[in-house]
Amino acid sequence: MATPETPAPRHIRLTSHAGGHGALPIQWGAATPVERGPIVGTTTKRAHRNVIGTHSGSYSVYRALAVAAGALSREHRADLTNTSPTDTIGPYPQWSEPGKIVSLDPWGATVSEVFAAELAAGYDIRPTIAVTKAHVILPEVIEAIQKGRLKADGNILLEGGAACVTKAAIEPVWWLPGVAKRFGCSESDLRRVLFEETGGMYPELVTRSDLEVFLPPIGGQTVYIFGNPHDLANPEVELTARVHDECNGSDVFGSDICTCRPYLTHAIEECIQGAQRGGVGLVSYSRKEGRALGEVTKFLVYNARKRQVGGDTADQYFARTECVAGVQDMRFQELMPDVLHWLGVKKIHRLVSMSNMKYDAITGSGIEVGVRVDIPEDLIPADARVEMDAKKAAGYFTPGVVPDAEALKQTKGRTL
Amino acid sequence: MATPETPAPRHIRLTSHAGGHGALPIQWGAATPVERGPIVGTTTKRAHRNVIGTHSGSYSVYRALAVAAGALSREHRADLTNTSPTDTIGPYPQWSEPGKIVSLDPWGATVSEVFAAELAAGYDIRPTIAVTKAHVILPEVIEAIQKGRLKADGNILLEGGAACVTKAAIEPVWWLPGVAKRFGCSESDLRRVLFEETGGMYPELVTRSDLEVFLPPIGGQTVYIFGNPHDLANPEVELTARVHDECNGSDVFGSDICTCRPYLTHAIEECIQGAQRGGVGLVSYSRKEGRALGEVTKFLVYNARKRQVGGDTADQYFARTECVAGVQDMRFQELMPDVLHWLGVKKIHRLVSMSNMKYDAITGSGIEVGVRVDIPEDLIPADARVEMDAKKAAGYFTPGVVPDAEALKQTKGRTL
Repeated sequence: MATPETPAPRHIRLTSHAGGHGALPIQWGAATPVERGPIVGTTTKRAHRNVIGTHSGSYSVYRALAVAAGALSREHRADLTNTSPTDTIGPYPQWSEPGKIVSLDPWGATVSEVFAAELAAGYDIRPTIAVTKAHVILPEVIEAIQKGRLKADGNILLEGGAACVTKAAIEPVWWLPGVAKRFGCSESDLRRVLFEETGGMYPELVTRSDLEVFLPPIGGQTVYIFGNPHDLANPEVELTARVHDECNGSDVFGSDICTCRPYLTHAIEECIQGAQRGGVGLVSYSRKEGRALGEVTKFLVYNARKRQVGGDTADQYFARTECVAGVQDMRFQELMPDVLHWLGVKKIHRLVSMSNMKYDAITGSGIEVGVRVDIPEDLIPADARVEMDAKKAAGYFTPGVVPDAEALKQTKGRTL
Repeated sequence: MATPETPAPRHIRLTSHAGGHGALPIQWGAATPVERGPIVGTTTKRAHRNVIGTHSGSYSVYRALAVAAGALSREHRADLTNTSPTDTIGPYPQWSEPGKIVSLDPWGATVSEVFAAELAAGYDIRPTIAVTKAHVILPEVIEAIQKGRLKADGNILLEGGAACVTKAAIEPVWWLPGVAKRFGCSESDLRRVLFEETGGMYPELVTRSDLEVFLPPIGGQTVYIFGNPHDLANPEVELTARVHDECNGSDVFGSDICTCRPYLTHAIEECIQGAQRGGVGLVSYSRKEGRALGEVTKFLVYNARKRQVGGDTADQYFARTECVAGVQDMRFQELMPDVLHWLGVKKIHRLVSMSNMKYDAITGSGIEVGVRVDIPEDLIPADARVEMDAKKAAGYFTPGVVPDAEALKQTKGRTL
């Protein structure tokens, strides 16, 4: 690595001060981008910053490493030529309905266009959303073609098995007053706890109450759209949708202890079928590994489940997570519907999810849900019965039998 | 959500002070756990903390949300009963060789055992590594069985297609003096830049030079081992290995613009074959989405590539990433070999990677590499030729022809 280009030591400001000259105001939820104002998370011109934190979620740490290593100029500004969205999303009325969207920037995909004046005036404004097109090839889709469940149509699904999608990557942009309201706590408590329980991340959370927007160093989400993205906002067009939380062990590696990848690929099959019927399909993928506990905790829980007295039974499924993590789940579906409102969704005709928490969050946010589509029995790996039965007993949607206490003791997974 | 259990406002400490009573010293790289001392990243007892940051990488933010929402007691301590590793890893001589491991805690999997006395004395010590066993079922492996390339043996690979693995999840634990050395900068520059270029994350990076260990809020890595984990440390046993960086678009969704999933599943096939020959297989999966630029930047680059004058040609492949991101790549393979040293690896007989950066990092860290295994031609999606040819010209290993400048102009991908 080259010698870093960091200049000689300068004064370090530990926490910034209110009233920087040139910082543009943010009026969250305003109806037009001019009134709303841009999100400025640049590290280049401090005085221009109007948020806590910076861009790219966790990857801001790698960006810092690149600067430290001398590989990246700290003055670099993104050349956004040709990067604008391949498809227009919105604006939709939901973007300015109070409290509908609090964890992403609805204008984040079109900053080059809607904040052209501010960019020209020297503000370093970066997209927090990117929209592109892709061809996705999944072995499960190819198998569905071979078995006759799916047919190529040359548009949604090509000969050879590639599905044509529009996809968007979305960084988290949290409007703290709105996030606090979703979680039923005060904004000052949220700020204090975010600071203290991370071991002191971003003191500006507590020193800069004038900054209401936080770019947290966490993963964001990606949406995959099958069919015309504009149809997502039309409640007359059949929408098939799944909201999926990351599970690397199953989604990528096919671990048989859960149903994550089988359910995801089944949803993609449903989305393709729906789009081929003249509808539209949507998969929203959130980076919340292992119920947002992270993979280390997840694997610790696996061991505790497999080794407990009596074996890995469904009646003890949630208890083992609670022992290790203190909670059953940290995913908090409260923020999840925001992306649906960004896309203008009013009605999901077929929700490919059995989660009562996801269903409650979606319907609670004002989106109508038609039918719920459970995972086909033959896609549930044997060892994943433990999780499935435990969840059904805890409130997961099922058109079938809800296991009782005795049945839960009988559902047992493999030992180590 | 319940009312948060946050007590009435208290004094907020913006940055902690040196010399907390009861914090145990860390002597990084010491030969025994007693001399090394435990990593204490708890948020419960501040005086016990001996690191900057806290556990679970990015997911510490979700943990904080759980506390703010009143779902988790801030006093919760993990019950580690039955969570210990299913397989012993080490200790190996590499654990205490100066500078060999600087970005993970080699004792992180066995804290219950090696720091039992400290745990009993009330220190909240959490594992930063978890080791478990799993069965993984990949459609590509099932296809390889059907086509006769793989055969079930009832041990490594079961009838039905499940492969039996030992897997470990590893959180990042950075010893800052060592990380700085890897990147060729001073520790104080590293600390300052990590603080400033993240928009002010963790002022303790600059105020607490006595704390040498940082738990960064980034994703970690997961290793999948095919065969006996102890064999990884025996250079006489054939080791097939791939070090893979996350690409959600391909790894999960099968996007055809790159070779990530096809190469990964090919590596798994190679690992299974190697283990069946009496060797051992290893896949190390790092959470460094889109060259650690994040997915928003990645999609912006896709659009810029597909729309540029002349189309998406291999000769412009790296240029488009640089325009947007300022660098071609932020993955920095410098820290990647640490996990190999944790596993005791001395020789990789078959490295399933064409990356010169990965090869240089591995061999530069003292690990011998036998042959390199390139991706079979028929696994490269048509649209991914652009990336593949550009990388070959830039130094990627290939037993075939290296494209010249003229050839790079001819390799062209799809338009949007």
